[in-house]
Amino acid sequence: MLDPDAPSTLIARMGEAARGAAATLAISSDARRAAALARAADALRAARARILDANAVDVARADAAGLAPAMLDRLRLDDARVEGIAAAVAAVAALHDPLGQVIDTATRPNGLVLSRVRVPIGVIGIVYESRPNVTADAAALCVRAGNAAILRGGTEAIESNRAIHAAFTDGLVAAGLPAEAVQLVPTTDRAAVGAMLAADAHIDLIIPRGGKSLVARVQAEARVPVLAHLDGINHVYVDASADADMARAIVLDAKMRRTGICGAMETLLIDRDFARPPMLVAALQQAGCEVRGDQALRALVPGTAAAEPADWDTEYLDAICSVALVGGVDEALAHVARHGSGHTDAIVASNPRVAEHFLARCDSAIVLWNASTQFADGGEFGLGAEIGIATGRLHARGPVALEGLTTYKWIGRGSGQVRG
Amino acid sequence: MLDPDAPSTLIARMGEAARGAAATLAISSDARRAAALARAADALRAARARILDANAVDVARADAAGLAPAMLDRLRLDDARVEGIAAAVAAVAALHDPLGQVIDTATRPNGLVLSRVRVPIGVIGIVYESRPNVTADAAALCVRAGNAAILRGGTEAIESNRAIHAAFTDGLVAAGLPAEAVQLVPTTDRAAVGAMLAADAHIDLIIPRGGKSLVARVQAEARVPVLAHLDGINHVYVDASADADMARAIVLDAKMRRTGICGAMETLLIDRDFARPPMLVAALQQAGCEVRGDQALRALVPGTAAAEPADWDTEYLDAICSVALVGGVDEALAHVARHGSGHTDAIVASNPRVAEHFLARCDSAIVLWNASTQFADGGEFGLGAEIGIATGRLHARGPVALEGLTTYKWIGRGSGQVRG
Repeated sequence: MLDPDAPSTLIARMGEAARGAAATLAISSDARRAAALARAADALRAARARILDANAVDVARADAAGLAPAMLDRLRLDDARVEGIAAAVAAVAALHDPLGQVIDTATRPNGLVLSRVRVPIGVIGIVYESRPNVTADAAALCVRAGNAAILRGGTEAIESNRAIHAAFTDGLVAAGLPAEAVQLVPTTDRAAVGAMLAADAHIDLIIPRGGKSLVARVQAEARVPVLAHLDGINHVYVDASADADMARAIVLDAKMRRTGICGAMETLLIDRDFARPPMLVAALQQAGCEVRGDQALRALVPGTAAAEPADWDTEYLDAICSVALVGGVDEALAHVARHGSGHTDAIVASNPRVAEHFLARCDSAIVLWNASTQFADGGEFGLGAEIGIATGRLHARGPVALEGLTTYKWIGRGSGQVRG
Repeated sequence: MLDPDAPSTLIARMGEAARGAAATLAISSDARRAAALARAADALRAARARILDANAVDVARADAAGLAPAMLDRLRLDDARVEGIAAAVAAVAALHDPLGQVIDTATRPNGLVLSRVRVPIGVIGIVYESRPNVTADAAALCVRAGNAAILRGGTEAIESNRAIHAAFTDGLVAAGLPAEAVQLVPTTDRAAVGAMLAADAHIDLIIPRGGKSLVARVQAEARVPVLAHLDGINHVYVDASADADMARAIVLDAKMRRTGICGAMETLLIDRDFARPPMLVAALQQAGCEVRGDQALRALVPGTAAAEPADWDTEYLDAICSVALVGGVDEALAHVARHGSGHTDAIVASNPRVAEHFLARCDSAIVLWNASTQFADGGEFGLGAEIGIATGRLHARGPVALEGLTTYKWIGRGSGQVRG
């Protein structure tokens, strides 16, 4: 007997509605999906006052509950942020349709013509935290690629999410798509997240959007496949052949441009034969970064704080950098293989043979030569947007945008072929 | 404290060795991997007597234990079967290298050149049953795509698998690849399978090869991603516009060519307006197939047995076919969506608009027009081989061969770009 009030019953009911909507989306035209997102953007703009009112309720409640200022800032909306949400949805509307694309096609000797054609994944669950913009961002990317979405945002943003979701689905319906294409889990019961993670019959993919504890919980509990990254323990290796000015610029940008994003450098590896390690350390320190060095670095740059063993495995997301001297590119690669998280790692080098050696052997989702790790972003990669960055090894890696939200099917066109 | 004898400790130790071997494989040349498989094929041929001796031990033990004749046949090797195993490995050696292939490349406005390049997945676990040939087949495909393999075959084939595995790794080592590239779980303890399924830190992908109960267990228990299909409940829909002779040939081939394979038709859907449903039923019956019809069919073809509700959800893998009359292509699609398993479904139709309607809307991994469902096979699809057929929606669908055993990484080549 199903408990009609159980979270699993709720998610199953939402999942069935989503499956129906996904079938409609899968055969909808590019024009209709694009129009639906344009309408959703319009509806979000038109609902600005209602969204801000709802957000004020969330913010007041969160403030009274003593939410940290950084969390309050993520939660808070204003005119500009609502416009940003609407503009992002409109930008996704303008992206190139991934569906129906023929990946490859071949005619077999018996005349059977086989093609692989991009189709939507189906039903995608998004689990996120306090940022209300994810409600619209994630929904837009899912719908653009023909997927139905089941959204579960943070409890502290529930009123904002409801208002954004209502406007968004108004836009979908105005363009003739089903409202069930994007559903918001109505309850703030945490058990609903567990029910989503277990709903492998109803949800094809879960994408967590948020901090490490959320991602860790999702990865630990999910029966549904998960697209995510847990850590961005990213390295920049400065080779002996590196141009010193370029190395300085890349190291500063990789660490200090924004310290809190997943593409930020956390560990700097410097070739023992690089001419000026102290210059790189001084540049970081002058930019306000705390440097924690290994023994060899500290011998070279007296007064540097000591890195503990745990430092090499730490994603600081802050103005702190662990720095080690290494004996060339292979020692750097060994360090990255041991301590990295497979997210984004870079080499700065003028010697192309050393650089290509690094690019071929570094096993991370994104490997860069003479460029900052902070480029790890779907927009910067020319994908138009991103639903997240994946460090797993299956389906999609690195920045995931519309293509990563699709799969393919085989279509065979024959003239009566039998296997015989 | 780790129990040194626990299956999880064994799998962790094997997983670490596999990870090291995978790193070597990932940067090995195409020529070396191809040579290693050619050497492995030679070594299998040279070890024929030893393999047959080992197999005789397995067969005698299984016979004494009362193994069913069909299982004994799967287990039993002879000269021709050993030659077949070696020839299959040699054929995989000759396949085109999937690694290093540039999927796409683009230069960003800032000059950063971004490419997606095919790389191996890493460590692949294969869990299989009594067929000893899987030991060599699966290992060959994994190694060809640069992956290390951890193999866990059936208890009843352990001596055969050991002999095949020893010859195979002799070939790898002779070509300069590490023996740990292909490891055989040495114990027949069933808990070792559980340990593999839980080893998400050490194994990147599990591929079960065997019957439904094995696949169901793997899918239910695995923390590691799984590539597989559970059922092949495949449909052929015969449209009113179908050529009657073509329909007859395809229906007979799809059902009766081999009834025990996953690509066999299990349900025949006939358009009420098709001229000759009784002819199709008679053709099946004359070929020795038991027909179970819905009420409408039984009214049209008196004496046909009645299909129970469970028949529409049954993979017979036998000379039995459920048959229903439907009111056109949309009713056929609704039946497939409700009862199908997403494996392979076909339409027979002369009207291209009806056929394309079906091809676009049927959501299965393989959708065919005017061709037999028994083409669902990597060899028939021109992939050279297959590690299995996947009905999941992520990573790879339908027949999975070398490309499905790879992933990609992003490589960016810059000239000092910073995000700024």
